[in-house]
Amino acid sequence: MERLIKFIDEKSVLVNQEIERLLPKAELPPATLHEAMRYSVIGGGKRIRPLLVLMCCQAGGGEFDEALSAACALEFVHSYSLIHDDLPAMDNDDMRRGRLTCHKAYDEATAILAGDALLTLAFEIMSGVSSPKKSLMCVKTLARAAGSAGMVGGQMMDLEAEGKTIEIEDLEIMHRRKTGALIAAACRIGGIIGGAESETLDKLCDYGRNLGLLFQITDDILDETATAEELGKTPGKDAKSGKMTYTTVYGREEALNKARELAAEATASLHDFGAEALMPRLLVDYILQRKK
Amino acid sequence: MERLIKFIDEKSVLVNQEIERLLPKAELPPATLHEAMRYSVIGGGKRIRPLLVLMCCQAGGGEFDEALSAACALEFVHSYSLIHDDLPAMDNDDMRRGRLTCHKAYDEATAILAGDALLTLAFEIMSGVSSPKKSLMCVKTLARAAGSAGMVGGQMMDLEAEGKTIEIEDLEIMHRRKTGALIAAACRIGGIIGGAESETLDKLCDYGRNLGLLFQITDDILDETATAEELGKTPGKDAKSGKMTYTTVYGREEALNKARELAAEATASLHDFGAEALMPRLLVDYILQRKK
Repeated sequence: MERLIKFIDEKSVLVNQEIERLLPKAELPPATLHEAMRYSVIGGGKRIRPLLVLMCCQAGGGEFDEALSAACALEFVHSYSLIHDDLPAMDNDDMRRGRLTCHKAYDEATAILAGDALLTLAFEIMSGVSSPKKSLMCVKTLARAAGSAGMVGGQMMDLEAEGKTIEIEDLEIMHRRKTGALIAAACRIGGIIGGAESETLDKLCDYGRNLGLLFQITDDILDETATAEELGKTPGKDAKSGKMTYTTVYGREEALNKARELAAEATASLHDFGAEALMPRLLVDYILQRKK
Repeated sequence: MERLIKFIDEKSVLVNQEIERLLPKAELPPATLHEAMRYSVIGGGKRIRPLLVLMCCQAGGGEFDEALSAACALEFVHSYSLIHDDLPAMDNDDMRRGRLTCHKAYDEATAILAGDALLTLAFEIMSGVSSPKKSLMCVKTLARAAGSAGMVGGQMMDLEAEGKTIEIEDLEIMHRRKTGALIAAACRIGGIIGGAESETLDKLCDYGRNLGLLFQITDDILDETATAEELGKTPGKDAKSGKMTYTTVYGREEALNKARELAAEATASLHDFGAEALMPRLLVDYILQRKK
């Protein structure tokens, strides 16, 4: 676990430097838009998706650093989804990553456009992350995961489920889309850049799918037990607003069991890998035990 | 002009069929999201950007139909920008293309997500429009044109200018980004798929840049003179909300002169082309004379 924490600390610095480099300078007009983009990405977030891209690039046979700009593109897509999800018409959240949400720090129009611009920038970056063939695979993978069959579709299902009792299967489908699809895409994209073949990519993607749901369940558990300071956002909000969560449906003990199951499945997806998949293996326990 | 109108009528049918094919089916869950995406794209709009892609594909040496799915991707990006621009936090418009705007027909959250999903779908489509090399050039061209240095940046400048007196140069920069960038990208993307070389692509792009501004100025003129029925949206809204337009700044006569100048420049960009650029040439006059 110490090696993982060292990896996370070191690579987060690299990711943050690259994010800084890839974002438009705040002085460039329209300055407010560029400031809002930078505000929303810089200085917050666990960088789980970028770290997964780097880890899976190595697991797929490449070097971590080859996947640095693709890693940042994933974080831009994640940040855009948070900006739009936090809007008053959506989840209406004032706090994110320990600071005011984008529409609170700026205004709604700026937040909508900053999200739009970050999503677009992610595709611009992705079009030049590696060889033309690999870059194109990355663009396609990202677009599928982020679109109406993936993340955006999951967010829509989440909104529609508010205040309703839905089947546990539908809750899982929703989360697999809303959180899981982009995390799985991060793993696949890392693998693509690392040079992995189709079968290996599928395994990395399976790993990501299970890890994504594990991440969501631990999120739901923390949402019940952690403080606003630990989370950097308002805790207990989902349960209060009548949204079903894994803890409200299963209870906390059962939710923890489900998390352990998914952790085992994620680890099993990496069975055929050797030492090159050490970091993604260690990450499973790290997420299972996370406190924030 | 008759040949152009025949072209527009015929190719619009093809474009609309392909749009229908490329959009997710309305039955697919989440159904409301897919319905809202379809509602916003199908059954309205002049399809100027898709038609430009087809025309410039031929001007660049290809066949119209090779560029059909790229043409639709451009329309998806245009539709997404209209959905987001119409939101209450932005231009707050109730009518678009003769019908209720997306957030009026559905709700704000659905409209935000439908826009997000259409933009994402455009990149998914663009990743497979031609050979890997050409597809990648198209993705990059689209992303640059749609992002914070292009369309989204222009929309931000437009919002910031509301109620203020800005320099005429800044009005032009704003429009060149807000409308011009995507129209120029449509022309370049058509050329890329048609197999044009870099110098030819630049000429098509110049043509598109001038045509885009011409389109905006005729829009401003029509906004003063046409009826809601002709426009399919509320006329005179920009002037009323204190936005500067070409007619409020230059006056109608001078705006018309500026339009004629741009038409001449657009035509001049096509000077070195032969019969393969007949349609883009005819389109210049068509836009100069448009009544809706």
